Amino acid sequence: MNQNNNLVIMAGGVGSRFWPMSTTEYPKQFIDVFGTGRTFIQMTYDRFKGLVAPENVWVVTSEKYADIVAEQLPDMPKSNILLEPCRRNTAPCIAYVSWRIKSKNPKANLVISPADHLVTDVVEFQRVIGKSLDFTAENDAIVTLGMKPTRPETGYGYIQADLQAASLRNKEIFRVDSFKEKPNLETAKQYVAKKEYYWNSGIFIWNVNTIVNALRVYEPGISNIFESMLPVYGTDKEQAMINEKFPQCESISIDYAVMEKADEIFVFPADFGWSDVGTWGSLHTLAPTDGNGNNVIGNDVRLFETRNCVIHATEEKRVVVQGLDGYIVAEKGNTLLVCKLEEEQRIKEFSAE
Amino acid sequence: MNQNNNLVIMAGGVGSRFWPMSTTEYPKQFIDVFGTGRTFIQMTYDRFKGLVAPENVWVVTSEKYADIVAEQLPDMPKSNILLEPCRRNTAPCIAYVSWRIKSKNPKANLVISPADHLVTDVVEFQRVIGKSLDFTAENDAIVTLGMKPTRPETGYGYIQADLQAASLRNKEIFRVDSFKEKPNLETAKQYVAKKEYYWNSGIFIWNVNTIVNALRVYEPGISNIFESMLPVYGTDKEQAMINEKFPQCESISIDYAVMEKADEIFVFPADFGWSDVGTWGSLHTLAPTDGNGNNVIGNDVRLFETRNCVIHATEEKRVVVQGLDGYIVAEKGNTLLVCKLEEEQRIKEFSAE
Repeated sequence: MNQNNNLVIMAGGVGSRFWPMSTTEYPKQFIDVFGTGRTFIQMTYDRFKGLVAPENVWVVTSEKYADIVAEQLPDMPKSNILLEPCRRNTAPCIAYVSWRIKSKNPKANLVISPADHLVTDVVEFQRVIGKSLDFTAENDAIVTLGMKPTRPETGYGYIQADLQAASLRNKEIFRVDSFKEKPNLETAKQYVAKKEYYWNSGIFIWNVNTIVNALRVYEPGISNIFESMLPVYGTDKEQAMINEKFPQCESISIDYAVMEKADEIFVFPADFGWSDVGTWGSLHTLAPTDGNGNNVIGNDVRLFETRNCVIHATEEKRVVVQGLDGYIVAEKGNTLLVCKLEEEQRIKEFSAE
Repeated sequence: MNQNNNLVIMAGGVGSRFWPMSTTEYPKQFIDVFGTGRTFIQMTYDRFKGLVAPENVWVVTSEKYADIVAEQLPDMPKSNILLEPCRRNTAPCIAYVSWRIKSKNPKANLVISPADHLVTDVVEFQRVIGKSLDFTAENDAIVTLGMKPTRPETGYGYIQADLQAASLRNKEIFRVDSFKEKPNLETAKQYVAKKEYYWNSGIFIWNVNTIVNALRVYEPGISNIFESMLPVYGTDKEQAMINEKFPQCESISIDYAVMEKADEIFVFPADFGWSDVGTWGSLHTLAPTDGNGNNVIGNDVRLFETRNCVIHATEEKRVVVQGLDGYIVAEKGNTLLVCKLEEEQRIKEFSAE
């Protein structure tokens, strides 16, 4: 295991599209949506085992989730949980953790990963991550992972690869032609029909000097803040200064801040069974079903004449559902939701205070 | 208030047709099915206020419900809660409480009432009970209350009145021609078309000597058991002896044991908004609904495109239901039921261990 390898898990999301399972107090990355006993952030941590040592795992999250992270990832050092005092999108988050890691190890090689995605083929995932880390260890390169699209998904951004421009060092890695915003259905169909478009997984690999230098060039305001803090990283003054300085950062995504501007941007087209499992519907597609198309997660769930439903009620002792087709039935924290799967985009409305 | 008036509430039922609200541990008579803050047995107690003094209220129930009764009816004496060691239908239950009351007051005048029925017009109810008690105070008569049928209900027994034979003492009270078992739909329709058939409410009025004498004649085996216990009633030996003797009683209903055999049987046809609320469907018919035909009982229930449903979830902080028509959604004690109202006769199947 290369001791320069570091994993950064971005876990500041407040995703509540799995309400009532997920709430702003307990967002998606901290819930066990498949009923496997492991939450999304735990599964994320698990799939880097052997690639990154526990002491090189970093989590950036909101202060209010600090205890949840420490509880769910007890093997990583508590001091590696970095706390954002407010939400400023991904660029300040990545800048903070990058300077923080650089202050400890200037040769660090980083994977940036969302906390709440699913990967089904972890062996292939580890191969792709390993190859990418090898590549960025030797090159001043930003590597993105592009997922081979299986459908004209309108919920993801796309990466257009220049398939004529493979890297000399790794024939699986290509230069990026352009980044595309979430498309409409017509455009998404065109992307899928062509070969060079990939879903943007939000997983990035680079060495710490590459990202720090890119931020210095493209976001000097943000860079100056975190560079000026070099003397306090790892001291007991760090959090107080972060609480003071972090809110001064511009709120901007790493995609806008760096990816769409920098030159040495690459994409590794990969296929390891990836999903962001953003919705109950995607869970329904991904999770195992019984013979009637039901995903059932709970202690004692009994279904009668019920098809194509997602039943998620681990806090109930007993659940009986009769005569439903295509519904979500979810209960957590004394909150119950029964709604049609096809209406799940209204969960924000349903869960409003 | 006549101090001879006594109320006997029969509360030994194990009805679990309102599962998961009702269970054998907490059967229907002890649940607040309307969300009013009062359970069935409390509503039963309440509707006799002014007619019967608290110290003259008696409850016969199973030993395992003793604490629930004491908690729900704190104003009546705990010593008036009589405990059956086993279930022997209504005749032994009524025999026990009748001798028990007679030992205290040989002039007692009794109303026997189920614990789990609904009455909506309590003023009329009190008038009818008052008139009936006046009648039985002066006559050796068994008075039943017959409910004017509003539909060809197959779930109730019927009483056929001899409308030519009004009592001389009370023109509203008639001799009974016959008792009819729960009919099939065809027969029920014939009953409703005629004028002299009434639903058997299971509410009886008589003085204590009438019922004791009737039992002596028609059920000497049962009578002997409770008559022999006269020396121990009200002493600390009562429960032990009941536990020993009660199981020896034949299991038989008061209808079979007495009503269908005795001569001086009367019916008071009445109309005070009565229902036994035996099912979720009857609750749906009886309880107030919103503009879309939903009965909603819960702290924070939000409905979207939902019609003709019964939502009963007082232990949930928040319930959201979208896109259901004609369903029961009920949650209690970490047990959740979602099923079609029209399938509620299968609740026994749904609730099986």
